Amino acid sequence: MKLGLLVIATEILEGKIVDLNTRSLAHFLKKLHLELNEAHTVRDNEEDIKRGLSSLLKTCDFIITSGGLGPTLDDLTKNVLASFLNTPITYSHEAHKVAESNYERLERPYPGKEHAYSFLPEGVKALSNSTGFAPGLFAEYQGKFFLCAPGVPREFNSMLTDHLLPWIEKNHKQVYFMENVVFRTRRVPEEKIFGEVDSELWKKLSNLGDVSSLPGIMGVDIGIKIKATDEKGLSQKRQAVIAIMENSPVKKHIWHQGEARLEEVIVKLANEKGITFGFAESCTGGLCSHRITNISGSSKSFMGSVISYAEAVKTSELAVSAELIVSKGVVSLEVAEAMAIGLAQTLEIDFAVSITGFAGPSGGSPELPVGSVCIGLHVRNKVTRSFKLRLFGDREQLKERFAQAALMVLHESMEEFA
Amino acid sequence: MKLGLLVIATEILEGKIVDLNTRSLAHFLKKLHLELNEAHTVRDNEEDIKRGLSSLLKTCDFIITSGGLGPTLDDLTKNVLASFLNTPITYSHEAHKVAESNYERLERPYPGKEHAYSFLPEGVKALSNSTGFAPGLFAEYQGKFFLCAPGVPREFNSMLTDHLLPWIEKNHKQVYFMENVVFRTRRVPEEKIFGEVDSELWKKLSNLGDVSSLPGIMGVDIGIKIKATDEKGLSQKRQAVIAIMENSPVKKHIWHQGEARLEEVIVKLANEKGITFGFAESCTGGLCSHRITNISGSSKSFMGSVISYAEAVKTSELAVSAELIVSKGVVSLEVAEAMAIGLAQTLEIDFAVSITGFAGPSGGSPELPVGSVCIGLHVRNKVTRSFKLRLFGDREQLKERFAQAALMVLHESMEEFA
Repeated sequence: MKLGLLVIATEILEGKIVDLNTRSLAHFLKKLHLELNEAHTVRDNEEDIKRGLSSLLKTCDFIITSGGLGPTLDDLTKNVLASFLNTPITYSHEAHKVAESNYERLERPYPGKEHAYSFLPEGVKALSNSTGFAPGLFAEYQGKFFLCAPGVPREFNSMLTDHLLPWIEKNHKQVYFMENVVFRTRRVPEEKIFGEVDSELWKKLSNLGDVSSLPGIMGVDIGIKIKATDEKGLSQKRQAVIAIMENSPVKKHIWHQGEARLEEVIVKLANEKGITFGFAESCTGGLCSHRITNISGSSKSFMGSVISYAEAVKTSELAVSAELIVSKGVVSLEVAEAMAIGLAQTLEIDFAVSITGFAGPSGGSPELPVGSVCIGLHVRNKVTRSFKLRLFGDREQLKERFAQAALMVLHESMEEFA
Repeated sequence: MKLGLLVIATEILEGKIVDLNTRSLAHFLKKLHLELNEAHTVRDNEEDIKRGLSSLLKTCDFIITSGGLGPTLDDLTKNVLASFLNTPITYSHEAHKVAESNYERLERPYPGKEHAYSFLPEGVKALSNSTGFAPGLFAEYQGKFFLCAPGVPREFNSMLTDHLLPWIEKNHKQVYFMENVVFRTRRVPEEKIFGEVDSELWKKLSNLGDVSSLPGIMGVDIGIKIKATDEKGLSQKRQAVIAIMENSPVKKHIWHQGEARLEEVIVKLANEKGITFGFAESCTGGLCSHRITNISGSSKSFMGSVISYAEAVKTSELAVSAELIVSKGVVSLEVAEAMAIGLAQTLEIDFAVSITGFAGPSGGSPELPVGSVCIGLHVRNKVTRSFKLRLFGDREQLKERFAQAALMVLHESMEEFA
């Protein structure tokens, strides 16, 4: 079964928001061993929506749409679907009931029979919305299927779980099982992995599935998509892939097998080892802590951080001496180390990582231009270290790269010392 | 001129990454009074890429592609373009020179003549890449134009600036001027704005341009896209839109006219007023500080924060008494206020905002379920306040909503007290 997504959202094509529903749908389908074939984003006008549907109908059996179901006049999905199915929009008692119960769930009175949510194209089914007001839509047309969901990510996701999932479980016969076996590598560029490190690797892996290579901030993800007709066959292929990687010189660069984020790997390791940690963040401004606290369970090992943006805070909260800042500079290995030591002492934690650098666009110096960062590490009773890096990008990209580098330092030091 | 984007990225359709290039391109075009007509995302295989190009060719005059230009075997854009243009791929001295200079710029040796970057479909031009190795491609075909850029956001963006911008400036005759006039509102739901607050508003604004309504975390953005044949006409329409909003009861809900983010508005206001501020973040884990420090110039007014994830850190760094935490609960108005007061004193800042809540998925209590948050505010020598809210979503969504609510409190209090 081929699935396509039509994102109906002028605001995405105007850059006001970023589309998150493609990723949600992809993750949702992956768990069901299904794939998203393609995704189109069109503006909120009837002609464009219609053309998007027509185009996806050529290649897909099931089309999911996102957006254009709300109460305002730029919400056109229902009209387009009616014209597409060549059927009039009429009052539907069933739709009325669904809308009414959506409102009841959110403890708000339903505006009444004349509200747009009580009207539907004939032959279209209204879908309950467990997280919002607007009903979804379901239709069958010439042996193909449409599910129209609201664009708000929370509501889009609940439509998938509440309506697409049971439909797939009932109607889709599983033909094959699928898995993307991922290896996350560090400290080696994409070109080298499949070049001087192991020039045969791509070919060898390709015998087992589609190989892909995804460069990230400080490393490359290698993915091998394996398929089999049953779970056993899938497991055999997975083992064969792992065996190839185990015997490749690339092995020493692999820091994780699987799709977990670096912050998940860190929290899991810290929780397993009973380690406590925290950050003294200057130029990353809280991003390291934010990423760690996105992970459920992080409160067991992450104690807290000090965002020492101003120099006075480095002195008062982290006990970095003002003389050191003047003599060595605020972005220096010495200050980074002092920040890490100060944090470890004040929060009484095992691992402290500090970040001080120039995220730009202004600041920096000829010796330390924007993009320069010093990362300090203090492991209680064991070691104090620091690293200097030069990275590239605009302010927000630099913050991301600095944070990724700092989390890498934390992860490597936990592997080494915990 | 109609522009379309083809995003070539299996990793987006598999949910490994989120597409950021659509937003960048949209922002880029907006400055030039141009619009992105539609965007397709397809997998890295020849058939899908070809279908995507064909489909966009039907409606667009200029097609930009993102991705599939790298050195690995899943990079197929060049092959597809050759087959699409029905022309062979051959060695190109010009392409070789471009690739070589890309490598030189990044201080790496170019692998040599046999490298893929030295080969091009005949009639296609290689484009220099100021931020990466892979050259871009430019082609003309039946009066339409193709610009193929690498998918890495930094490289994609530099292709726009280095190559698309001069092309547009040279070849595109400006037919009309365009602007999206945006009003950001707070504390009123979308349905009410165009309903009980001002039921005539949508109609009145529609006389001046396309109206859109974009619900956000704690408010709604109203946009009116105005067009005119010259700058003067545009300015007149803008004034007319502003006059309508000034005379609407919606006015009291508007917190900003324009497209600035809340954190930008805060930093600008704080810098103008000479205010210092910071956060005591528990459940938001650094997100408030991260958002503020994304803004260039924030170091003038944002002094720093304490991420007091563990209770011990609330006690040691923010001087919240352990007894208060036990008697009132860690998520309580009293603890939120104590955190804000403690932060203001320790960092010596004017405005301190604290956040303590349950982001889930575990935790909470029958009285304070996951999604509950207390926000504390302390304005030096002026006021201490606190607010309790109940929000919805998964862990990361709750962190975002909590942070948005906290920034709203900070902004409103700056308007009131600074």
